[in-house]
Amino acid sequence: METSNSAPVPQDAAALVALDWGSTSLRAFLMDAAGGVIADRTSDDGASRLAGGPAEFEKALRRLVGDWLQAQPRVPLLACGMVGSQHGWREAPYAGCPVAVDALDRHSIVADGTDGLQVRIIPGVCFTADHHVADVMRGEETQIAGLLCTHPALAARCRVVLPGTHSKWVEVRDGCIVSFRTCMTGELFSLLREHSVLGRLMPPATDFHAEAFDEALQRARDDAGLGLSWDLFSVRARALMRQLETAALPDYLSGLLVGHEVAGALRAVPRDEPLALVGDPVLCDRYVRALRVLGHPATVIARNTAPQGLWRLGCRARQVAS
Amino acid sequence: METSNSAPVPQDAAALVALDWGSTSLRAFLMDAAGGVIADRTSDDGASRLAGGPAEFEKALRRLVGDWLQAQPRVPLLACGMVGSQHGWREAPYAGCPVAVDALDRHSIVADGTDGLQVRIIPGVCFTADHHVADVMRGEETQIAGLLCTHPALAARCRVVLPGTHSKWVEVRDGCIVSFRTCMTGELFSLLREHSVLGRLMPPATDFHAEAFDEALQRARDDAGLGLSWDLFSVRARALMRQLETAALPDYLSGLLVGHEVAGALRAVPRDEPLALVGDPVLCDRYVRALRVLGHPATVIARNTAPQGLWRLGCRARQVAS
Repeated sequence: METSNSAPVPQDAAALVALDWGSTSLRAFLMDAAGGVIADRTSDDGASRLAGGPAEFEKALRRLVGDWLQAQPRVPLLACGMVGSQHGWREAPYAGCPVAVDALDRHSIVADGTDGLQVRIIPGVCFTADHHVADVMRGEETQIAGLLCTHPALAARCRVVLPGTHSKWVEVRDGCIVSFRTCMTGELFSLLREHSVLGRLMPPATDFHAEAFDEALQRARDDAGLGLSWDLFSVRARALMRQLETAALPDYLSGLLVGHEVAGALRAVPRDEPLALVGDPVLCDRYVRALRVLGHPATVIARNTAPQGLWRLGCRARQVAS
Repeated sequence: METSNSAPVPQDAAALVALDWGSTSLRAFLMDAAGGVIADRTSDDGASRLAGGPAEFEKALRRLVGDWLQAQPRVPLLACGMVGSQHGWREAPYAGCPVAVDALDRHSIVADGTDGLQVRIIPGVCFTADHHVADVMRGEETQIAGLLCTHPALAARCRVVLPGTHSKWVEVRDGCIVSFRTCMTGELFSLLREHSVLGRLMPPATDFHAEAFDEALQRARDDAGLGLSWDLFSVRARALMRQLETAALPDYLSGLLVGHEVAGALRAVPRDEPLALVGDPVLCDRYVRALRVLGHPATVIARNTAPQGLWRLGCRARQVAS
């Protein structure tokens, strides 16, 4: 799959090629000197699908945006995400918490390709607690850089919630990532939907069933002390006894998972701390509902802020031709 | 797969064919009039693998113990488990809580085969809370009947823990099942091991790593308020940072899952309530460790008590030729 909204590229207009290169997809943004997106393209060439080493990463990049590079061979390239992991193009060692979001580029490394191609890679961040590395992220740090660019007031103090396959809840203080934690909500949903005894009860795809989702949120709130694994079987019991229509089961399951994530996380978030949601709008809508039911609504809701983050970090590194 | 320990069957010695017929396997026990097991056999013909309706169940039964039935055509057959589900041989509607364990046979139904073959099926049990059916079991009720047969002192008051794919924690009072709840620990372990980003880090099979298991139990105890889905990603973080050898990862994951199950469950169990563990000895060993770390050791540990349960319920129904 490739998607594109690119008109013909104006000669010399581009100041940065920003690459949001995760596990399952590669998103490229052609940006101007003011941080505006001129064009963007997406392919399925995520890092987890490129098992053949550095050469494959270069090929995937040229496949998607080879014409951009030909039109402006000297435009800098800046990437974030799993492209910098052990199995990425080149490993960018994690920066440890606390780390100033603005200083992430100082820890960046360069992956070299053929014909002088260079891609600068922003490192991931690791969080250490009790002398153990407790958690890791790659890509979210750059989204946070973008968020603080568009919402500078959050830099002083906020909790950034990035829902997804591996949701992150990130504590930001004085422009620094000071701690964070990952919740496997999205992956658990996929596993349970596709491979479990619960998934077998569910139809392939359905519209959103708000009532079932909200009912599950309330159950998660009430059962937070008991724990998620104790609530999951209720999906089966309710289906067997025909207390919930099968079309509503996926959203009931989703509500349990999101509800337990949010209920657990909020125990560590002071009541007056601003919350910012960053990510896919459809997914963010579910978290908006959950945060409301669990009593701590979000202050800011933003889409993928990785391009803005890369642009900001690219500026600082004086990579952007302006 | 079929296993058997059956010597030639003594003529007229059998008083009952007890069938522990779950989702994934069929276990048959030939029992004498005193409740002793003369012979037992197991096949893979679990109810979930017999999609072709009643005739397939009869075939599977005759395949496994046809010679027993020929030798003594009038021996009664009593079954429990998923054989009585919607997709079983014949549906045995759930008995509602509270239900006297000794009276379960009153709710039994009969599945008819060819040539006068009859199999009596013990019903499952459902638990209703807040006007909703909150949970269901099939097979465990019969194991509890067996446990109370061999340990009658438990009948007054105990919590029976049956670890497995879907662990059950069952509240017993005055010989009755009064409430229970299911935890999907075993299924979650399989899903995460086989299909998740965590499983990909793990070697196929390893010895038991007690230290990793116990460390995860402690983490689950300390993080019980935060919740399971928040702890799972630590498997990945610890593997990426090489803080745990890959061979120990499966037991670390197992410890997180069992630890969160037990920590959550114990919040609803009074400190002085006797706990009985029933099930596979290797699995029970893990729960013995977890119950110790979480401060509520088990009083009784028993293997599969389904044959004793079927024998007891068979006696009451005056089915057993004695």
